Amino acid sequence: MKKHNYSAGPCILPQEVFDKSAQAILNFNDSGLSILEISHRSKDFVAVMDEARSLALELLGLEDKGYKALFLAGGASLEFLMVPYNLMKEGGKAAYLDSGTWASGAIKEAKFFGETVVVASSKEENYNNIPKGYSVPADADYFHCTSNNTIFGTQMKEFPSLDMPIVCDMSSDIFSRVLDFSKFDIIYAGAQKNMGPAGTTLVIVKEEILGKSGRIIPSILDYEKHIKAESMYNTPAVFPVYASLLTLQWLKKLGGVAAVEKLNNAKAELLYNEIDRNPLFKGAAAVEDRSNMNATFLLNDAAHTETFDTMWKAAGISGIPGHRSVGGYRASMYNAMPIESVQVLVDVMKALEKAI
Amino acid sequence: MKKHNYSAGPCILPQEVFDKSAQAILNFNDSGLSILEISHRSKDFVAVMDEARSLALELLGLEDKGYKALFLAGGASLEFLMVPYNLMKEGGKAAYLDSGTWASGAIKEAKFFGETVVVASSKEENYNNIPKGYSVPADADYFHCTSNNTIFGTQMKEFPSLDMPIVCDMSSDIFSRVLDFSKFDIIYAGAQKNMGPAGTTLVIVKEEILGKSGRIIPSILDYEKHIKAESMYNTPAVFPVYASLLTLQWLKKLGGVAAVEKLNNAKAELLYNEIDRNPLFKGAAAVEDRSNMNATFLLNDAAHTETFDTMWKAAGISGIPGHRSVGGYRASMYNAMPIESVQVLVDVMKALEKAI
Repeated sequence: MKKHNYSAGPCILPQEVFDKSAQAILNFNDSGLSILEISHRSKDFVAVMDEARSLALELLGLEDKGYKALFLAGGASLEFLMVPYNLMKEGGKAAYLDSGTWASGAIKEAKFFGETVVVASSKEENYNNIPKGYSVPADADYFHCTSNNTIFGTQMKEFPSLDMPIVCDMSSDIFSRVLDFSKFDIIYAGAQKNMGPAGTTLVIVKEEILGKSGRIIPSILDYEKHIKAESMYNTPAVFPVYASLLTLQWLKKLGGVAAVEKLNNAKAELLYNEIDRNPLFKGAAAVEDRSNMNATFLLNDAAHTETFDTMWKAAGISGIPGHRSVGGYRASMYNAMPIESVQVLVDVMKALEKAI
Repeated sequence: MKKHNYSAGPCILPQEVFDKSAQAILNFNDSGLSILEISHRSKDFVAVMDEARSLALELLGLEDKGYKALFLAGGASLEFLMVPYNLMKEGGKAAYLDSGTWASGAIKEAKFFGETVVVASSKEENYNNIPKGYSVPADADYFHCTSNNTIFGTQMKEFPSLDMPIVCDMSSDIFSRVLDFSKFDIIYAGAQKNMGPAGTTLVIVKEEILGKSGRIIPSILDYEKHIKAESMYNTPAVFPVYASLLTLQWLKKLGGVAAVEKLNNAKAELLYNEIDRNPLFKGAAAVEDRSNMNATFLLNDAAHTETFDTMWKAAGISGIPGHRSVGGYRASMYNAMPIESVQVLVDVMKALEKAI
């Protein structure tokens, strides 16, 4: 039976990524060796790393603009620490927008380093919207925001223009929509949504902002050291980087970020239209801030939960129960999800309406 | 043609790990989903993580002795930082044995935190031996050593008994020989030698030593937070952890660490005997400190290099050029390497002797 995988992450990836990466485990590049047993310094893997780094920049329109792409370990959670270590001056300050659980985690780590100003927060409304109308202290060393909030189903549609470095955690919507990415000085993203399997983190850094904090930075947390070592300061996560490259190659063949954005818009429109039309459901997030990646919604009457759950399971859907912070349902529609899978969910919602 | 993979790491793994992990990428546990697209919170992956953690302790004889096993990200290089963050008191000191490049890297990171005493170093002899006869300051917060030095081909055969926590980087020889592992309070190891593919790091911690440094530790670097979260503080490297579990299961079926130690001893004896017998070669490391994992050796006459290189390549051997710090050759014979592959190398060495 066909599966419709709505997991919030790690999540659905293109079938060709599964096919090609399974093949590379048995025989990589026809070398007679598995991708799991080759040196990260081997010519074949250095080529993988180089292509993944340059393709990430190309897909975001950031080639030849002073940026470097790195594939690091530790997830976005380690970047919560690396960002202030590299950018916050001794006795300086940082400005953070608190739009959800992960933004809040980033703020917590920044507080170890110095004054951390939360310019706005939607915590009181259980993060059901993106805060707006805030001002950022002009003397902050940098501004940090989170472009998409997986748990709450909200997504930033606009970003401020500021005279300071802008850092953005794009873990859950990178490569899903066209933005002027050159507005940002650091973009980071755990691979496990639109880029690849769990185990590597893409970090894109504008080189000119580094080396100004005056801090002594432990080697493994120092972006300059990782750039100098061409993302091989220590052994990278070979297989996750390779599978990420396959996913980026698939995206390029599809037509790049602009092409997938159209598909993502169509999927989101299809589902949100049904959430708004169907009298049994309501959306969880403020309409103007709705995420095109993660749609959060609730049954108006919790008494229908068991019936609905039985119906979507029978349709081959998995991964849509909502996060415990929100309840209800969360349908994650990352790049690799076909619109046909969204139609299956919409059909189940319609069928529930008829059945009740 | 059969390949004989002597790569120093990432390195050879058992064929059944390749077969089973490729299958799991196409269809994991007959779920119809790939291991690359499932949530780390799914029942099936939680079971993988739990089994990997308990099997690691079981294979080292550390169950029910107050230890916890974690699969973290960032490699041994991040542990260089986490160890002092968690163990070195404010104004305290740490004692390190400098036996090679990685030990030296660990020392460098510790110096960010406080007084770091190098109790002994073999750096002056290009790390061709393990320093001995040192004394450790009684007031150190912990003692750190590196059990096997991949680059130089040396291995600690004895460990000191001390009234302080002992921390050991066992990245390149964990699960290869029987030791009294309960002598150690923290053992860490990047997966990519005897445990699995690159991308995850095993950290084994004796819980009672934690929480005593008085430091405020960033969340992502805090062993106590990782233990509390059962090694899921943030998204783990799902596939590398799964492939590590497969490797540990293979080792258990083989008879565990004692069984593989016999095989490793036989492989090392076969190769070192030839290095010592064959007048064309000499070993690079002090005989009493020779590593059973990485045998470093040189041609007595560099003029034979081209001939030898042509011969081993023709025999299907790969990965034996030595590290640039030592030169010559390095044959890495990790757990998964069959003795037949070592015999092929020995035969090439004998053939060279005849040819010259």
